Amino acid sequence: MYLKKMDLDQVLKRYLERLRDVGFFERKVERVKTRDALGRTLASAVFAHRSVPHYNAAAVDGIAVRSVDTIGASKHAPKKLTKDRYEFVNTGQPIREGFDAVIMIEDVHFLQDSSVQVFEPVPQFHNVRLIGEDVVEYDMLFPRYHRLAPQDLALLLAAGVFEVDVLKKMKCVVVPTGDEIVDPTAELKEGLIPETNSLLVKAFLEKLGAEVAVFQIVKDDVRMLEEALHAFLPKSDMLLFIGGSSAGEKDFVYRLLEKTGEVFAHGLNLRPGKPTVLSIVEKKPVIGLPGFPSSCFTVLERIVRPIIDEWYGRRDCEADFVEAESVRRVHSFVGEDEIVRGVVAKVKERYVFVPLKRGSAVMSSLSRMNGTLVVPKGEEVIEEGQKVWIKLESSKCCIDDTVLFVGSNDPLVDRLVDLLCERKLNLTVVSVGSLGGVRAIARAQAHLGGIHLFDPETETYNLPYLRKMLNNFVLVKFAKRLQGIVVQKGNPKSIKTLYDLARSDVKFINRQKASGTRILLDYYLEKLGIEPSKINGYENEESTHIGVALKVKKGLADAGLAVAYVAKLMDLDFVPICWEDYDLLILPEFFEDERFKIILDVTTSNEFRNLASAYAGYDISEAGKIILEGREL
Amino acid sequence: MYLKKMDLDQVLKRYLERLRDVGFFERKVERVKTRDALGRTLASAVFAHRSVPHYNAAAVDGIAVRSVDTIGASKHAPKKLTKDRYEFVNTGQPIREGFDAVIMIEDVHFLQDSSVQVFEPVPQFHNVRLIGEDVVEYDMLFPRYHRLAPQDLALLLAAGVFEVDVLKKMKCVVVPTGDEIVDPTAELKEGLIPETNSLLVKAFLEKLGAEVAVFQIVKDDVRMLEEALHAFLPKSDMLLFIGGSSAGEKDFVYRLLEKTGEVFAHGLNLRPGKPTVLSIVEKKPVIGLPGFPSSCFTVLERIVRPIIDEWYGRRDCEADFVEAESVRRVHSFVGEDEIVRGVVAKVKERYVFVPLKRGSAVMSSLSRMNGTLVVPKGEEVIEEGQKVWIKLESSKCCIDDTVLFVGSNDPLVDRLVDLLCERKLNLTVVSVGSLGGVRAIARAQAHLGGIHLFDPETETYNLPYLRKMLNNFVLVKFAKRLQGIVVQKGNPKSIKTLYDLARSDVKFINRQKASGTRILLDYYLEKLGIEPSKINGYENEESTHIGVALKVKKGLADAGLAVAYVAKLMDLDFVPICWEDYDLLILPEFFEDERFKIILDVTTSNEFRNLASAYAGYDISEAGKIILEGREL
Repeated sequence: MYLKKMDLDQVLKRYLERLRDVGFFERKVERVKTRDALGRTLASAVFAHRSVPHYNAAAVDGIAVRSVDTIGASKHAPKKLTKDRYEFVNTGQPIREGFDAVIMIEDVHFLQDSSVQVFEPVPQFHNVRLIGEDVVEYDMLFPRYHRLAPQDLALLLAAGVFEVDVLKKMKCVVVPTGDEIVDPTAELKEGLIPETNSLLVKAFLEKLGAEVAVFQIVKDDVRMLEEALHAFLPKSDMLLFIGGSSAGEKDFVYRLLEKTGEVFAHGLNLRPGKPTVLSIVEKKPVIGLPGFPSSCFTVLERIVRPIIDEWYGRRDCEADFVEAESVRRVHSFVGEDEIVRGVVAKVKERYVFVPLKRGSAVMSSLSRMNGTLVVPKGEEVIEEGQKVWIKLESSKCCIDDTVLFVGSNDPLVDRLVDLLCERKLNLTVVSVGSLGGVRAIARAQAHLGGIHLFDPETETYNLPYLRKMLNNFVLVKFAKRLQGIVVQKGNPKSIKTLYDLARSDVKFINRQKASGTRILLDYYLEKLGIEPSKINGYENEESTHIGVALKVKKGLADAGLAVAYVAKLMDLDFVPICWEDYDLLILPEFFEDERFKIILDVTTSNEFRNLASAYAGYDISEAGKIILEGREL
Repeated sequence: MYLKKMDLDQVLKRYLERLRDVGFFERKVERVKTRDALGRTLASAVFAHRSVPHYNAAAVDGIAVRSVDTIGASKHAPKKLTKDRYEFVNTGQPIREGFDAVIMIEDVHFLQDSSVQVFEPVPQFHNVRLIGEDVVEYDMLFPRYHRLAPQDLALLLAAGVFEVDVLKKMKCVVVPTGDEIVDPTAELKEGLIPETNSLLVKAFLEKLGAEVAVFQIVKDDVRMLEEALHAFLPKSDMLLFIGGSSAGEKDFVYRLLEKTGEVFAHGLNLRPGKPTVLSIVEKKPVIGLPGFPSSCFTVLERIVRPIIDEWYGRRDCEADFVEAESVRRVHSFVGEDEIVRGVVAKVKERYVFVPLKRGSAVMSSLSRMNGTLVVPKGEEVIEEGQKVWIKLESSKCCIDDTVLFVGSNDPLVDRLVDLLCERKLNLTVVSVGSLGGVRAIARAQAHLGGIHLFDPETETYNLPYLRKMLNNFVLVKFAKRLQGIVVQKGNPKSIKTLYDLARSDVKFINRQKASGTRILLDYYLEKLGIEPSKINGYENEESTHIGVALKVKKGLADAGLAVAYVAKLMDLDFVPICWEDYDLLILPEFFEDERFKIILDVTTSNEFRNLASAYAGYDISEAGKIILEGREL
């Protein structure tokens, strides 16, 4: 049971206040060489020790003159300056006492007797870079808590500031814990979990300016945890345990911190991120981070980051937001703030947000997301089409460039994504099945989608479906794929036809309902008179071809419907059923887009053809053929 | 003379094409440990070596069951499972063969005979994290040229990818050149320039992912430059000379590169940034960067960055833009792209852009700017109030938070800026003089302004002026300042009154025309019947108090009008003239802003009072008093 479960904002405020009260945020200062101060935070305002420039300098190549000598000069009545009334100067050279202006060399006429003629009067300080023009001695260059950028270091040096007082780096020690946690490169038996969090935590903290040491994995053992606490706390400003912060029988971190210090929260109303312990031990923050990656990341962002920002006196304003339309209904837990990571893209002049996989253990969404939705406590549902504010995790122009691809999953599309990187095009793929793809394009929620929708009446693909569902559409042919039954190597159950799937000794793995492969299967089952309920495992769904094949490979199923390619990839046997058309449905407005032209270009390139020809069960001879339909096009 | 002066876009395109032709962008690959690959760029697509999770795991603490055993269970008719039909599991533990669902421990009733009762049917895979739920073996994790973030490393390790192929870092060697260039910490005689560029160049290149070595300063000597070229080019991918790239008599870099390789441009139609040499020597880019800091920085951004981006296959989309109103007329050179650095702020629901000091030698603007305006070739002028697109150099929310202060310059305001950092408020000060401040507030081009405007009729400050110029206004009292004549230590010229300024042996330094100090001087001169033309140096203007005092300190003038504070700061003598009111004019809409309340709060704080009391010639006893005027308020 969580003993002090609290709301995030409330606990964070109290926690920061208490840390301030015990003196944790008192500024710790050290003096460093300016040259070594990149990225450091100034502890106090810095003033210029010398002016920039520090002398009056010629701004051009020419002659230094006295401006009074040039009064009245004109084309018709040039003024003559004798040798003692001028002096040659190059750009950057000092203007000597007595001279106060520079005339460009090309505007001067040289006479035989070493005197010169000038043809225009020049004002005082003409073409002179005056002392202090850029920075004046005693000027305040930067206020306190300014984080030093490269150009700031150059300015400080130019202004004679060779050392600066900066805030000491926050020293953090990270201690991964758990009996089940092992080095990720070790052999991974079932039940063992690779320790990947510390890498994430370290890089996150370092980016914020902290100094980080990661200790070896500590077992779920109160005594060992206590030893780690006492060994590292004196050497650090903040101590972070990873794991053991939940409320299970082996979660000792809470109990240890309750015993040793003051615990502010055990359990947050935050999803993911609930199993968190916030405490103060010996006037320092000691935090139990959740062990699941997505939870851990959330707590880093929402709790740990504000603590470090406060340490460095930093404003928390590094996030930009856009208003976007959620393309899906999002259910959330009423009692908790919920973080939903997803993909933002600009489609038809507005932003759309596609939520990715959730769950505290999910890692892939952390890498694939470019935006975050926070569903606040109290809200139960975000409707499809509802406008929501999305925190951007990428620059806005990167997001504006993102091409959003939804629909059915296909490994050749992944290769297209990879090839498009050569053309600097970012195609982001989110799998939602063929029908989901059509739906998204109909609602202008994506730029394009991959579909393979079988029409039983005509026994053809895609066009009949689209004609029923859309008034007008743009379809681009992509690939024919060989569909069939994936079975184990050597086909030990001797599966020859779809009839064999209904055998009691055959365990089947199915695809999810909206997928084209599922529609195809259901058609054949009906045509052949096979009762789905007779198929052992019909109700078990995977959402990708590879997922199906993997289940077969691992022996968790005997058969599944998938494309020939994945069978070859995983060295499995394959029973062909039919060729299907996997095509690209294009948002009509995207048809004229430069980026679509690039996609078409790469799809029809020799490089892509060569690549596809190495893929078993693919035929891309028609790839790139465009089918336009509808009155309005 | 520049020999191959070219337009930026055109030369960059040709230069990149030629570099591609000679094979410079052929991908160079190395294999690194995933753990060490933070920030590195993938050379090719990476696929998962194992699924995440790699086994079916319990998602909660509870008992593993067979889902079929629970069919028909209800509150009234619970199903009983004997000891062999269930198994305890903790979160993360594997579900053993035969079991296919997990029931949470709190939903189970334990009986005396070690059997349990369950009260609900559970579907297959209930509370089970299925193998491959997050990532499936063989899935493409990332396409080529993806730059690895912390969470990506964690995902790769979890997916069993322990080594990755990444692009080799681009090796850059930087060679500062010039006879006048010295170590910035060395004694700086006139004519010597501190070498600060290499620090800027190094940090800039490293941020983009390059490996950088900086060589010692090379003199303007063809033979030595040639030696440096031959010594470093074989060890680097790109060689950058700083300085010597202009067209003066000692600018040898162009001549060297013309002799050794192929020169693409000498001189760019870019301001600042003109003196640039782009060449290819031994199939590698060798660039002569301008020696002036602002020019150097511009060429880094506009030329060097695209080369490095291309090396790493990166999309150039790191810049965001806002549309902003220019608060000043900006004159530009028709024949060149011109870069204008400035401050962007959000005032009254739109963005305004305040250009900062220009000039190729200006360093301070590089540190103070948060936005860049590019005036393209062919445009001669940007009008005041004209909408322009500004490239943001800071996050948009930082810019939205920026409070823009314009008007007269005051050192106590700088201290206020510094103190406000404790309250996380960013007050950005741009000096435009008192009248400029009033004008900016009248046009809603800033949030507040500092003014001290003397009214000769009433011999009072600010209010009479504002009543004439504005229908309604909000004025906040700030400080009384003692104005007077700053003279050299010991007052060697024995300056006692303003009459002494007209003496022929006295060299005066004036303030710029719109400044309050200048208006005050002109009033007294007229009142006392002193002819300005009689004052030696009346036409020489400085734009700050410190600037005036510094001229006196350095012996470049004998007297100038400034506040007492700067005389004390620089250990100069001072002849008091009068007390003046320096007040803050507030944009009416800003009066209700939370940020204004913070400014007021700090201005009236004890900390600020204590600080001001240590400032000679300041009286802030009225600070914070608010004067509202006008019908509409």
